[in-house]
Amino acid sequence: VNHPVRDLDEVVHQRVRLGILAVLAETSKADFTFLRTTLELTDGNLSRHLQVLEESGYVAVEKTFERRRPRTWVRATRAGKAAFARELASLRELLHRVDQAGGRK
Amino acid sequence: VNHPVRDLDEVVHQRVRLGILAVLAETSKADFTFLRTTLELTDGNLSRHLQVLEESGYVAVEKTFERRRPRTWVRATRAGKAAFARELASLRELLHRVDQAGGRK
Repeated sequence: VNHPVRDLDEVVHQRVRLGILAVLAETSKADFTFLRTTLELTDGNLSRHLQVLEESGYVAVEKTFERRRPRTWVRATRAGKAAFARELASLRELLHRVDQAGGRK
Repeated sequence: VNHPVRDLDEVVHQRVRLGILAVLAETSKADFTFLRTTLELTDGNLSRHLQVLEESGYVAVEKTFERRRPRTWVRATRAGKAAFARELASLRELLHRVDQAGGRK
């Protein structure tokens, strides 16, 4: 039996990183403050998880200045979108399997 | 906006622990070897995650001897079943939200 959790990619599955990719699935790019507020994170926690996603090639981070103030934009790369889609597919399979098992009991 | 990932409990959401609780949702109890094989884990990795779940009160671990050989049985507690149900509800909400957003784009 190949259990669906075996297909989960821990880089994407981790709660905060899943949240980042979920927000980026709803918008072409999000800024650091928006991500931090939406996901209720500290600066350090968000930075750390963005770095993991960036090192995996799943997000691109762009630091800009707007009216002389720094602003950090984040967007999902093509690889990040694909990894998020695979995660969603595995989660759906897991939920389906749990539903089936519940029906059998 | 309260994003559904904010409701995820990291004790339950973590990939291996989610797998353990998913297997235990399909059966009243599972032995260590069955969990290890089904989830494709090492002894050390499974032990570590079982300990986290046990410390959170989500699983009960029973060490027995059968024909003089040690056997470790694991079952989900009532709190573990409830935590797993909350995780599934949050995952469904997340999938629903992503589906809605996909429809809007």
